[in-house]
Amino acid sequence: MKTLHELTERIIAFRDARDWEQFHNPKDLAISLSLEASEVLEHFQWKSPEEIKEYLKTDKEHIGDELADVFNWVLIMCHDFGIDIAEASERKIKKNEEKYPIEKAKGKHTKYTKL
Amino acid sequence: MKTLHELTERIIAFRDARDWEQFHNPKDLAISLSLEASEVLEHFQWKSPEEIKEYLKTDKEHIGDELADVFNWVLIMCHDFGIDIAEASERKIKKNEEKYPIEKAKGKHTKYTKL
Amino acid sequence: MKTLHELTERIIAFRDARDWEQFHNPKDLAISLSLEASEVLEHFQWKSPEEIKEYLKTDKEHIGDELADVFNWVLIMCHDFGIDIAEASERKIKKNEEKYPIEKAKGKHTKYTKL
Amino acid sequence: MKTLHELTERIIAFRDARDWEQFHNPKDLAISLSLEASEVLEHFQWKSPEEIKEYLKTDKEHIGDELADVFNWVLIMCHDFGIDIAEASERKIKKNEEKYPIEKAKGKHTKYTKL
Repeated sequence: MKTLHELTERIIAFRDARDWEQFHNPKDLAISLSLEASEVLEHFQWKSPEEIKEYLKTDKEHIGDELADVFNWVLIMCHDFGIDIAEASERKIKKNEEKYPIEKAKGKHTKYTKL
Repeated sequence: MKTLHELTERIIAFRDARDWEQFHNPKDLAISLSLEASEVLEHFQWKSPEEIKEYLKTDKEHIGDELADVFNWVLIMCHDFGIDIAEASERKIKKNEEKYPIEKAKGKHTKYTKL
Repeated sequence: MKTLHELTERIIAFRDARDWEQFHNPKDLAISLSLEASEVLEHFQWKSPEEIKEYLKTDKEHIGDELADVFNWVLIMCHDFGIDIAEASERKIKKNEEKYPIEKAKGKHTKYTKL
Repeated sequence: MKTLHELTERIIAFRDARDWEQFHNPKDLAISLSLEASEVLEHFQWKSPEEIKEYLKTDKEHIGDELADVFNWVLIMCHDFGIDIAEASERKIKKNEEKYPIEKAKGKHTKYTKL
């Protein structure tokens, strides 16, 4: 299994071979991230829970492709912005632990601002 | 640096401690992914390239937090759907290499359907 | 009830009084539209059908505000791009009538590309 | 030019002829709104201001179609939720006039929370 570092190198090599860094300004990168997340969402639109359960079996690779698109944009953005995503991921979980203390948040889908 | 596997374990433990799996149906997970990607995008809205350059210095941790939110939702979804994201990431890059052959795509931001 | 033309004049006057046209380049307008649509979506995240039914009663004005944000951005964009939205709306319905003929599409949520 | 009321009747008739109300629960309607707003945004992705200027001439009908999709979903949602969009639009402009007083907001793209 490739590491985050190796995957980042892989995707940046893909970009550099196509001379695409010139288009990758932060605003358009963020647009791409948002558009790819929408493509993930589109797979679940209109489907009932049962249809989704079935769909996750029949179209797992397709959904994996879309999630990979989102994931790969995150890696590109973190590369360009000088962000260590593993570190950021952990730090954000810690922040969420403080925002959503177990005793207050357990079993509720309430936003922290309303807890 | 934590591995993808360790980060996934970390975020799932966070979820389980709060008994939140009950809310994590695929449709709402995909909505969350999309909403968090929008929050990343919001940081770049209205700003000129110069303002963004400056902002990436002054607000790097904040942007890292938002990217981590997107990243963490990808890990949760992949966990729940049984997707190996490192494998999916590589497979998708390979597919993109076929969709965007270097000789056709170099230096262009054209979608593969119009290349 | 104000007409589309009057509502457009109203929102453009609001903008001009603040000298904001300078920021309203098409890319950032489109980003705004997308972000406001996400804010609508956020209201429905995590909620069960029953919770949503209740929420639509208790928070109707709030949801109306968010839909108005999306609507107002559409009016601004159409104003700036020289698009008659009433005409575009009707034209698009006609196109959809062709893409989704009643005899094929009735009672199905299938995308036209798969009908 | 059709009124908002007439356009709403038109789109609801389109829906009813296809027996699609059964799929139009609020969460999926909000997903649709968000996905269509993303489709508008996709037209502006990667393009420079000059390319966009040109694109708005050559692809005006196409962009009009996408904006109409967003607009039509707003009308459907307002119909289903019992919201008068013309009223909501005006009310929201008034709220924004209070959030962004001219003397504070003129010529700035700062969010009201930071004004």
